Amino acid sequence: MNAPHFEKVALIGIGLIGSSIAINMRERGLAREIAIATRRPETLKRAEELGLGTSYHLDTADAVRDADLVILCLPVGSCGAAAAAMAPSLKPGAIVSDVGSVKASVVQQVQPHLPANVHFVPGHPIAGTEQSGPDAGFLELFENRWTILTPLPETDEAATQRLRAFWEATGAMVEIMTPEHHDLVLAIVSHVPHLIAYNIVGTAADLETVTQSEVIKFSASGFRDFTRIAASDPTMWRDIFLTNRDAVLEMLARFSEDLASLQRAIRWGDGDALFDLFSRTRAIRRSIVQAGQDTEEANFGRLPHRKDSWNETPPAAE
Amino acid sequence: MNAPHFEKVALIGIGLIGSSIAINMRERGLAREIAIATRRPETLKRAEELGLGTSYHLDTADAVRDADLVILCLPVGSCGAAAAAMAPSLKPGAIVSDVGSVKASVVQQVQPHLPANVHFVPGHPIAGTEQSGPDAGFLELFENRWTILTPLPETDEAATQRLRAFWEATGAMVEIMTPEHHDLVLAIVSHVPHLIAYNIVGTAADLETVTQSEVIKFSASGFRDFTRIAASDPTMWRDIFLTNRDAVLEMLARFSEDLASLQRAIRWGDGDALFDLFSRTRAIRRSIVQAGQDTEEANFGRLPHRKDSWNETPPAAE
Repeated sequence: MNAPHFEKVALIGIGLIGSSIAINMRERGLAREIAIATRRPETLKRAEELGLGTSYHLDTADAVRDADLVILCLPVGSCGAAAAAMAPSLKPGAIVSDVGSVKASVVQQVQPHLPANVHFVPGHPIAGTEQSGPDAGFLELFENRWTILTPLPETDEAATQRLRAFWEATGAMVEIMTPEHHDLVLAIVSHVPHLIAYNIVGTAADLETVTQSEVIKFSASGFRDFTRIAASDPTMWRDIFLTNRDAVLEMLARFSEDLASLQRAIRWGDGDALFDLFSRTRAIRRSIVQAGQDTEEANFGRLPHRKDSWNETPPAAE
Repeated sequence: MNAPHFEKVALIGIGLIGSSIAINMRERGLAREIAIATRRPETLKRAEELGLGTSYHLDTADAVRDADLVILCLPVGSCGAAAAAMAPSLKPGAIVSDVGSVKASVVQQVQPHLPANVHFVPGHPIAGTEQSGPDAGFLELFENRWTILTPLPETDEAATQRLRAFWEATGAMVEIMTPEHHDLVLAIVSHVPHLIAYNIVGTAADLETVTQSEVIKFSASGFRDFTRIAASDPTMWRDIFLTNRDAVLEMLARFSEDLASLQRAIRWGDGDALFDLFSRTRAIRRSIVQAGQDTEEANFGRLPHRKDSWNETPPAAE
């Protein structure tokens, strides 16, 4: 049990990330009071049933009153309206942050509403699953994962350091960069991969020569990995593409250019070009496993393929 | 223990699929003799150390002598040469099959070499991991996975049924279709997904604005799933793209057309178009989980993200 990092923390939104932060605060004693606000009464009720907070609010302004730290855990497109709603009730000296997957747009949306006497430190925990809602959260979500903070040039350094210590207490590693660089990095490691996963799943569903039931039956040959990513929250991802437009379009242009070149290699039977690329990409996988960012087990260590055994302990490796 | 399905089976090639078949035959008693042939002495030695067979051969013709079933477990591009080498030694009445991810090309390569008195039943187990070599095989690989057989119009029906029973004894489900339809199905559920995974990993490695170390650090946001696929065997995948060219190019054209339309939706801020696609793709994921072709656990049930815990038992779900 750590000493509390904050007397009172308000979470605005209580989906996968919000509930995982709440569980961390509760289990690790990071805050004395946890105020939870969300717009939908059913979601708020569920958060209360799960015991995620110490007070529950349908009104954002109510939740943030007296809070030392306010974290917006909302789809990127909803951050501006939430900032406007809570601004009059913010405590002087409070730290305001968020968890959005796009940072320049959040700064643009939120900053104009905030009074001069609060500290705005935008943030983004690089962690998640394809699941959403207050039931999806878990304690270990941030462990050994990076959280990026993107303070503005005028942000108080002490506020940034307090927020860094808070995230580190959840098990996260913290990196600091500009909002613009963050958005470029995320465009290539996250946004474009999600876009092409969504896209191929859509393409497969629309074919005339291959039926949807064939696509589902034979998905284990690679396609099923894409469907997991393409099962992510639609609202969250719509907002990401609308608000990180320029970086996504830039990276997508590079992707398409490279794909055209691969297509040409296939058409003209250039096996060496294919083999060279396929060998190069293998090395990157090794680096990711070595950096502790993924398991080295085959198929991500998925359990054997029997429906009735998904919840059993996996057998020892051969 | 089943009654043996065959007196003698010869496996030509002993990588991930070959070794998994061998382990199935050994553990489930599907054959009395298992002859293993491979070109590289080190690989053959390793197969012998692992006890995968009952005899070991550097010469393909030696291995197939007296075999009732011969399975080519080779990259697609090597099947023609192997067929030529073994043809004179094949036992009359033997069944010849393969495990290649492309079927029309295997038929073209292999069929001309085979004597009229053997039964050719091309096959493809839709199962695998990103790992390769004789150490990668395991007993459960085919369990609850589909194996597709693509007999030719002139193929003896009894031979097809014997091979079907053999595959079912490994835990596989069997489907029969034409080689051409198989190649279209696989192009969309496997070949194009692998191609775009290889492609985006290559694109990410070549950027100037984002460093390779950033790509590796922040890979957990989606990218790492693609790197697993892009770590698959380079020779095998080169051969797949070279031999299933037409179907891959056709499916790739559809993919690119759809991607251009998504790109346009992002450029023009058409949030509804994005939201509609992202909701549709979620339903396909649910169908795949319901069909028992993937786990419903978040992140494929990957263990918590600590390097030292990869090999421990996962905790109970929250």
